[in-house]
Amino acid sequence: MKTLSTLEPLTTRLLEIQRINSAASVLSWDQETYMPAGGGEARAEQIAVLQGIAHQKLVSPDVQALLSQYVDPATGQAAEQPDESWDEPSRSLLREVWRDFSRAKKLPSDFVVKLSRECSLAQQVWVEAKEQNAFTMFLPNLRTVLQLKREEAQYLGYQDSPYNALLDVYEPGATIATLQPVFAELKARLVPLLKKITNSTVQIDDSVLHHSYDHTRQLEFGRLVLTAMGYDFTRGRLDLSAHPFTTSFHPTDVRVTTRVHEHELQSCLFSCIHEGGHGLYDQGLDQRYFGTPLGDSVSLGIHESQSRLWENCIGRSRPFWRFFYPVLQQTFHQQLHDVTIDQFYAAINRVTPSLIRVEADELTYNLHIMLRFEIEQALVEGKTQPEDLPAIWSQKMKEYLGIVPPSDTEGVLQDVHWSFGAFGYFPTYTLGNLYSVQFFEQAKQEMPHLEDEIAAGQLLSVRRWLEQKIHRWGRMFTPAHLAERVTGSTLRPEPFLRYVEEKYRELYQL
Amino acid sequence: MKTLSTLEPLTTRLLEIQRINSAASVLSWDQETYMPAGGGEARAEQIAVLQGIAHQKLVSPDVQALLSQYVDPATGQAAEQPDESWDEPSRSLLREVWRDFSRAKKLPSDFVVKLSRECSLAQQVWVEAKEQNAFTMFLPNLRTVLQLKREEAQYLGYQDSPYNALLDVYEPGATIATLQPVFAELKARLVPLLKKITNSTVQIDDSVLHHSYDHTRQLEFGRLVLTAMGYDFTRGRLDLSAHPFTTSFHPTDVRVTTRVHEHELQSCLFSCIHEGGHGLYDQGLDQRYFGTPLGDSVSLGIHESQSRLWENCIGRSRPFWRFFYPVLQQTFHQQLHDVTIDQFYAAINRVTPSLIRVEADELTYNLHIMLRFEIEQALVEGKTQPEDLPAIWSQKMKEYLGIVPPSDTEGVLQDVHWSFGAFGYFPTYTLGNLYSVQFFEQAKQEMPHLEDEIAAGQLLSVRRWLEQKIHRWGRMFTPAHLAERVTGSTLRPEPFLRYVEEKYRELYQL
Repeated sequence: MKTLSTLEPLTTRLLEIQRINSAASVLSWDQETYMPAGGGEARAEQIAVLQGIAHQKLVSPDVQALLSQYVDPATGQAAEQPDESWDEPSRSLLREVWRDFSRAKKLPSDFVVKLSRECSLAQQVWVEAKEQNAFTMFLPNLRTVLQLKREEAQYLGYQDSPYNALLDVYEPGATIATLQPVFAELKARLVPLLKKITNSTVQIDDSVLHHSYDHTRQLEFGRLVLTAMGYDFTRGRLDLSAHPFTTSFHPTDVRVTTRVHEHELQSCLFSCIHEGGHGLYDQGLDQRYFGTPLGDSVSLGIHESQSRLWENCIGRSRPFWRFFYPVLQQTFHQQLHDVTIDQFYAAINRVTPSLIRVEADELTYNLHIMLRFEIEQALVEGKTQPEDLPAIWSQKMKEYLGIVPPSDTEGVLQDVHWSFGAFGYFPTYTLGNLYSVQFFEQAKQEMPHLEDEIAAGQLLSVRRWLEQKIHRWGRMFTPAHLAERVTGSTLRPEPFLRYVEEKYRELYQL
Repeated sequence: MKTLSTLEPLTTRLLEIQRINSAASVLSWDQETYMPAGGGEARAEQIAVLQGIAHQKLVSPDVQALLSQYVDPATGQAAEQPDESWDEPSRSLLREVWRDFSRAKKLPSDFVVKLSRECSLAQQVWVEAKEQNAFTMFLPNLRTVLQLKREEAQYLGYQDSPYNALLDVYEPGATIATLQPVFAELKARLVPLLKKITNSTVQIDDSVLHHSYDHTRQLEFGRLVLTAMGYDFTRGRLDLSAHPFTTSFHPTDVRVTTRVHEHELQSCLFSCIHEGGHGLYDQGLDQRYFGTPLGDSVSLGIHESQSRLWENCIGRSRPFWRFFYPVLQQTFHQQLHDVTIDQFYAAINRVTPSLIRVEADELTYNLHIMLRFEIEQALVEGKTQPEDLPAIWSQKMKEYLGIVPPSDTEGVLQDVHWSFGAFGYFPTYTLGNLYSVQFFEQAKQEMPHLEDEIAAGQLLSVRRWLEQKIHRWGRMFTPAHLAERVTGSTLRPEPFLRYVEEKYRELYQL
């Protein structure tokens, strides 16, 4: 049996490449947190150089020669020799390296550098355009980035639609054809549910979330919850950024960010829990495999399932607040002393069509994603032009959520993703929602006392379970295979749909 | 006449290398400011990979082929062709690139990677060893780093002493033979001056500096002075670190750090001014030349002259405080309202043999440097063993300053430099002190109203003068040539000696 040690000449090279990519991630983290405004252009060039080098090293003749010793180029699988076969980690590693290599090989190095540079620049312009509600300021950059992503799809190749080439980057195996039925099923059950809720006699008052909450104390509470979740601050940090995110340079250095709004208690709170879920995944990856696909997260959908499981299944649940609400009341005595836990629970679970995706409730959130899924598909296929985006945005918002943004800042400019070329990324958010419930239901089945533990503020069993079942495996299994191993089934919308239907039936007395 | 545009194939490559080096500097900055403790090992590897790549790219056959077209390898000068000659920037650029290339070429790439990794690691161990007053914890790392630096000297080659090979890295042209007479002259005049001061009837009370000063307000005042100096915060930042430093990723992103001690008002204050002086140099470099030696600072001695000019010639002068003392009094009303400007001026200029170099007065500071100069020379020459350092440190402190540190934390562990292999760096501090006065005297001659402006809080004339005379030239001239252009003479200890003699004669009524 041939094991990973046989692959050392290959993994040594992958490790070097990963270190270069990690360095680029440090530069991006700094760009979003501490970099002075003037440093942006130089930073874009620095990141582009590093990504160009990483790309060149991956597609080098050196790596190609090694890979072609081990992999059957037709199937991408480990080439078995008659006398000896590969163990499972090696087979997985080769399959995934081949995936990365063969994708990278299709992209010319100068294209990679150009794409990186244009994305860094566009992201910086987006920040300003969003601040100034100036879509036209961002339009030229968006055009450039979109054009480059369409070129990328051509380089990568695809079936049916160029959008499929981009989807597969974030979620291996995902295509328009696999996603559309999922979204259709969600639409068929969520839209009527939303209608029932809107027509319900129960009116939830969430004004308590909009009192004045001290900046520092909000951050302190976020830090407290992160610590309770098992997020390790000796291997991580919490900082501020315009758009909360998680980034990892190594399992020993995984950073999350949040934002604090004085009159939006839920904003810092849930972004801390959400990013903490991502952070636990990255801290839970197996260090021994760092640099190889076995030490890397499996897909964005699965990654998002971790953040949403913590944010929603736990962070918006009654058991969680049974323990943490008294702590929150102590922290913000003046604002919360006469608010009951039921009132608070209702406030953080209020369903209402709203403009901003990241602040949306668990139900309408998926409608925000469907809208983006349709728009970006049309953009990549060339059926929609970037200059028409504000109009299309309004039209789709009206269609799905019944409201229209008063400004582009609250509309098409709200999300950073397109600025850095992340077309095909949004659908993974809904996949994450679906997977999160599928995983959490399984965890509750396997640990019957889980909710009691959570209600006692003990969150480490969840963390351990996720680490054992999901985090530590990296890309050993495909996303579908992993879901099957953990829950006995590939992705199913049913658990999520049942979960929201039950949750809101109770809350809205439907 | 051939100009820089001829050299574009070369400068394009240099720019890429500089961007990789800048990326490594971002990683180092993060390591010293925000990196979680657990991330240290991974960080050392990331930096090492980047430095290895930058080194490989510099010594590549590609760069070598370009250089050998333009440079006479025997002299390192631009190879003139009969029909056409190079303009001055091109000649300077080629001279300096040749210097960098031929040095780098002598070092094997795997040696560079190893040195980088060991220095990052040793620096992290030093932090802990210093905290715990545990020299023996640091000793194995120090041994490794010293051994590597001795190897480096062998690779580089030298005359007389391996220490000369290392000195030249930081201060082109500096050797033991050129430095010894300078130090001898300083010793001959500073030691008697110190004796006179110690025997003076004037006793300066600096207890006012040791009251309790609010952390945030100290930082705010530092920021205010930096702003007045013309340090551009849209192209820079001020952060906290154990050891204050300045780093630059590009003239548009130059960062300084400081530290704040509640009972040491001078610590944050003067480190802000000091690092601000470095920061202005880096912000003042010519962006058009970024990536080439013409966009790089000329030497550590000249760099230090900028920080010391601001810290001492300006920041410890009466005119400066005529404007800023009332502001400081407002900031710390309770502590300072009944302290006169003369008392404050005396307190920040009190001469006293002390343990810590960075907190030393302008006179004894140079004695701290002499001690390190002698010790590191002996270490590099193999005449002193690392394990004997604490004993030798005590003995030399006794000899030069008449005091002995009660702990290694306040003794041999106080400075970070040796941990990252910076042997040969310390002498540049004294060169900086000497150059600073030589430059400032010249500035005052050329701008007769300069001190009046400073007394009115107007510091921008100094900044502009330094930018025009020094910063913008990068490595166009050698340090000696630059000094001659600016002041009509190469380095002279006399202005500095006259300056301290006059300053302390007045203060101590000698």
